[in-house]
Amino acid sequence: MTFSASVVGGSGFTGGELLRLLDGHPEFRTVQATSRSKENKTVGHAHPNLRHKDLRFSSPADLESVDVLFAATPHGVSMEQIDAFRDAADTVVDLSADFRLDTEAQYDEWYDGHSRPELLADAEYALPELNRGNLAGADLIASGGCNATATIMGLLPLFEADILSGDEQVVVDVKVGSSEGGAGGGEASSHPERSGVVRPYAPTGHRHEAEIQQFLGVDVSFTVHAVEMTRGASATCHVFPDGPVSKGDLWSAYRESYEDEPFVRMAAGGGGVYRYPEPKAVAGTNFAEVGFEVDPANERLVVFSAIDNMMKGSAGQAVHAANVALGIEETAGLELTGFHPVGAP
Amino acid sequence: MTFSASVVGGSGFTGGELLRLLDGHPEFRTVQATSRSKENKTVGHAHPNLRHKDLRFSSPADLESVDVLFAATPHGVSMEQIDAFRDAADTVVDLSADFRLDTEAQYDEWYDGHSRPELLADAEYALPELNRGNLAGADLIASGGCNATATIMGLLPLFEADILSGDEQVVVDVKVGSSEGGAGGGEASSHPERSGVVRPYAPTGHRHEAEIQQFLGVDVSFTVHAVEMTRGASATCHVFPDGPVSKGDLWSAYRESYEDEPFVRMAAGGGGVYRYPEPKAVAGTNFAEVGFEVDPANERLVVFSAIDNMMKGSAGQAVHAANVALGIEETAGLELTGFHPVGAP
Amino acid sequence: MTFSASVVGGSGFTGGELLRLLDGHPEFRTVQATSRSKENKTVGHAHPNLRHKDLRFSSPADLESVDVLFAATPHGVSMEQIDAFRDAADTVVDLSADFRLDTEAQYDEWYDGHSRPELLADAEYALPELNRGNLAGADLIASGGCNATATIMGLLPLFEADILSGDEQVVVDVKVGSSEGGAGGGEASSHPERSGVVRPYAPTGHRHEAEIQQFLGVDVSFTVHAVEMTRGASATCHVFPDGPVSKGDLWSAYRESYEDEPFVRMAAGGGGVYRYPEPKAVAGTNFAEVGFEVDPANERLVVFSAIDNMMKGSAGQAVHAANVALGIEETAGLELTGFHPVGAP
Amino acid sequence: MTFSASVVGGSGFTGGELLRLLDGHPEFRTVQATSRSKENKTVGHAHPNLRHKDLRFSSPADLESVDVLFAATPHGVSMEQIDAFRDAADTVVDLSADFRLDTEAQYDEWYDGHSRPELLADAEYALPELNRGNLAGADLIASGGCNATATIMGLLPLFEADILSGDEQVVVDVKVGSSEGGAGGGEASSHPERSGVVRPYAPTGHRHEAEIQQFLGVDVSFTVHAVEMTRGASATCHVFPDGPVSKGDLWSAYRESYEDEPFVRMAAGGGGVYRYPEPKAVAGTNFAEVGFEVDPANERLVVFSAIDNMMKGSAGQAVHAANVALGIEETAGLELTGFHPVGAP
Repeated sequence: MTFSASVVGGSGFTGGELLRLLDGHPEFRTVQATSRSKENKTVGHAHPNLRHKDLRFSSPADLESVDVLFAATPHGVSMEQIDAFRDAADTVVDLSADFRLDTEAQYDEWYDGHSRPELLADAEYALPELNRGNLAGADLIASGGCNATATIMGLLPLFEADILSGDEQVVVDVKVGSSEGGAGGGEASSHPERSGVVRPYAPTGHRHEAEIQQFLGVDVSFTVHAVEMTRGASATCHVFPDGPVSKGDLWSAYRESYEDEPFVRMAAGGGGVYRYPEPKAVAGTNFAEVGFEVDPANERLVVFSAIDNMMKGSAGQAVHAANVALGIEETAGLELTGFHPVGAP
Repeated sequence: MTFSASVVGGSGFTGGELLRLLDGHPEFRTVQATSRSKENKTVGHAHPNLRHKDLRFSSPADLESVDVLFAATPHGVSMEQIDAFRDAADTVVDLSADFRLDTEAQYDEWYDGHSRPELLADAEYALPELNRGNLAGADLIASGGCNATATIMGLLPLFEADILSGDEQVVVDVKVGSSEGGAGGGEASSHPERSGVVRPYAPTGHRHEAEIQQFLGVDVSFTVHAVEMTRGASATCHVFPDGPVSKGDLWSAYRESYEDEPFVRMAAGGGGVYRYPEPKAVAGTNFAEVGFEVDPANERLVVFSAIDNMMKGSAGQAVHAANVALGIEETAGLELTGFHPVGAP
Repeated sequence: MTFSASVVGGSGFTGGELLRLLDGHPEFRTVQATSRSKENKTVGHAHPNLRHKDLRFSSPADLESVDVLFAATPHGVSMEQIDAFRDAADTVVDLSADFRLDTEAQYDEWYDGHSRPELLADAEYALPELNRGNLAGADLIASGGCNATATIMGLLPLFEADILSGDEQVVVDVKVGSSEGGAGGGEASSHPERSGVVRPYAPTGHRHEAEIQQFLGVDVSFTVHAVEMTRGASATCHVFPDGPVSKGDLWSAYRESYEDEPFVRMAAGGGGVYRYPEPKAVAGTNFAEVGFEVDPANERLVVFSAIDNMMKGSAGQAVHAANVALGIEETAGLELTGFHPVGAP
Repeated sequence: MTFSASVVGGSGFTGGELLRLLDGHPEFRTVQATSRSKENKTVGHAHPNLRHKDLRFSSPADLESVDVLFAATPHGVSMEQIDAFRDAADTVVDLSADFRLDTEAQYDEWYDGHSRPELLADAEYALPELNRGNLAGADLIASGGCNATATIMGLLPLFEADILSGDEQVVVDVKVGSSEGGAGGGEASSHPERSGVVRPYAPTGHRHEAEIQQFLGVDVSFTVHAVEMTRGASATCHVFPDGPVSKGDLWSAYRESYEDEPFVRMAAGGGGVYRYPEPKAVAGTNFAEVGFEVDPANERLVVFSAIDNMMKGSAGQAVHAANVALGIEETAGLELTGFHPVGAP
């Protein structure tokens, strides 16, 4: 265990996943987990899956010096605390949106502005399948957003294979679990209200459109629905390429992009019950599943993508990025297999 | 209770809903419910919600003469049994797809052909908000399909208000409950496999595209996902009109189409937790909820529609159509209000 | 519609059920629904199942004069507001625990005392199958608690038939839905935390023990678990009678107690999928289902009871009691049938 | 990876869990997984969590020679195939009930007899916390049943500390997930019927009573309910000791029994949302959680126990037993941590 690590915001859902991953990682040792609301309580108090651990939360006011600090704080906190984070750690991996976009103008458009715009150029966006080349040696990493990750993973091969150029109509219809709302939650997140919904919670204007636009160069028509599960994000991308595309063309494109990727699995209409990407098949893991069909009647391609929003969409991606940044084996600590069956994950 | 009624296929889910509705209907009395597999058993044996009733299933081989026969049989049965049905009843309401399409060619394309194509012209499709004028006095009624109904209810006002002409790109992304698979089910419908899925079960080529095309005159890019609920169908329609359309334009269009409709509720971004159409808000009822948003960044309209697939998408629509056909008050037996909260309905 | 009615606390879950029931009741007209938090908003803002209604919440500070006032407020409010309630209405039906117990000493033991103990003798507890004789003409009614109702409905025939005397060991293991926690809820009620639990939320000392003791005269070993559903309460009673009891004895006892009860259904091991009482079979209705088995190896009887906690355990029971108190047909407004299938109700 | 292993019955749920565990086990290499129904298909065809693996199912007619054979077949198969299993492997771990009981008379009473009663004395029952001393070097192991394991884990310390002697009243009320019904399933297991139930599926006479009686020497009043989850078993034990027992006494007893056990976690009323054992906190892991409360009003102890029925109740326990039998580190391959949040696991 070569590197010391800390988790700021350790009592949230994402913080809990980081603690789980670091605990099983051969190269990291967790020296601190902070929580304002649960200071001095064991990590198991917040995360029952970890109640065999004896680590206790400490105050975020006293950050220990570590090799890597993971910030799992709500949007807006990291940009305020970034100096303290960088003082405490050589490498900072931020899981919020605070350093994902390139320019202050984007933060003005999509968020409530940015208090440290001069740092935006320092940060590397992390979606390793897209840009792992930028991550080696990075010291400020902005881990990609969950819904953006699901979408980019689905569409990327179409751009890499020039099936799409960026001018085409792209509709992305996303279904997500309740953990995207974070721990705590208000009335809309209470169990009786949230159970069993098919709720259009972001009909238009979801902020992850900005990440997708920045990295794929395409404006997507993006709508996010809450459905009955606690974790998982599934993106269905309806795209309309200029000319005919066969299923064989798609297999070629996706294999070309992903055949060497350790965290990508293809599922495109094979046999059995689970013929396409499925959030419950990847729950608890860093896998992204990707699949597709051709709809010749409408000159449409339908691309499916499924991730665990807490893992490939958040904590898993952050650890993956840290592995690349620090020169560790990419899959270290992330070779997790989910279980089957599972209900609503 | 003026009219005698029977339900053929009474032990299936749709048959059970018909029995529930007829039982509470002021103008119908149920004189027969048939079931091959549960002959002589009480209806409560199949439908625990009805175990206070003493009606027993009888054989479909001995149909009693009735005023109205509702056929809740699997696709393909009605076209074989239609003569017996019409011999037994003055009015036949078929809930399967067997008489929904106009031509034999359509059945050749979308189904496995049709054994009685000469009768197709006799049948009236029933989606009363679309074509109630055709239903008065009809003696062979084909009740509209669940996913087609959800879609048509969402899109109809756009055509009636000339916001869409039929040439535009229309993507319809549907989420449905497990009852669409019917009672019984195989491995894919078993609880451990079906729970918590976001499963693309009809990525392309869903048969309800034919109904939508026939009645709206538009080719839709249609994809259906199974999600965690037993009943409910929610359609999200992504449409791209030629010119700018404001939210006010949409309110005008939808009010024009639906303000006098007894079974349509609007939900388009008001306050509270449930701001848009929601299957769980209409569970057990004949309501369709419809709502929308404008996405100016993508020149897109997003339309949401939610129904209970067993009710407005099946048994409720069938009773509604029978009411119109027989000159009964349209809402008779259908003034049902759902309950809140409900989990996964 | 002979009687005017109001609902105090109309935006909570129980208040919403009252509004639904009164809306469909032939003898009541709702003239007021109060809510502090949602004043001036439509009832559909809180209860999406009611969004076709145009009633708006008003302030509880201005109570209108009515024939019947239903108080659906949190425990402790009714005892403070009781004078205002009685000034406004001839008949007050309280759905909280504030007037269920007989003596101040019980409130000292099980609650935080009582501010108006002199009124306890005026109130009639309402569980009509137990004591409808007391309810005719009552002007202050305390509607029975959900878990107590499920338990009493299960055990009552054993006492009425002298199978139990009150000295025997009685273990009651209850499973309930999340609506028992009410609208709003805190961290434990948030969807990600509450989903899928089998959580012992009242291992011992649940307050409904007091109601059961008061009415059955037996000390029960009572444990309540939260399970995955939003509504429903299921009680499994394990009892150990002094001598041998056959299944036939049980059928006789339960038929004797319940055969004329309009809201009781028996389910004791018949065929089909649903052989015993089941919350989802009664969801949305005022039915109680009761069933049993004999375990000769352990000289045990196992009794099952299932209700909808919002209905037979709360709003339905309150309306039932009001019907009796006012001399209305007992079943008026309550002849509701649930639907099948339903997921987690 | 010192030992070769095979899984007979690899396409069932338990077989899938074994394949998952063996794949991550440092001392085992899987050389064969058999399936009659999915011969030649990849393991991912049955188990979507494993679709990154390239192992294919082979016929059970051609068993390869291995060090350890795990039999994950339905009850009754192992007793018929046991000679073939033992010919193929030095160590056979049977996950069915075929070799759990000691005598033919028990099989006559609880099952449909036994075809190889002379082998019963050769088999070691495996619940390592109860009897690990017997397992070293065992060559025929009968892995304990899920509901029996949950119950025994909860009650064992009470017997070891002489709080119970075996003469006391013990009521065990169990709640389980749908995977206990196995893959495939019939009408009762179909998603619409099974969703959201609180279904008494074994009111009395559950076969696991025999295992509990055999190993604890106590007759338990045992009732099993199906609730909404796919995996998990939670036992609530209501026990009535002869004299007073304090919570401190219980802490002492449980710590004495379990403080060195690697797979036992205590949760007995601490703070936070998850104060007691909870199936979703152990989903996917080999942990058993145990907790308790004292009910002085009823001279009752309430003991809670939660396991994953597929893991500690089946595949995990089998691998644990194999580790002990073969002299491998007990926790090898089983140091799995679940994830939080999870919905209905």
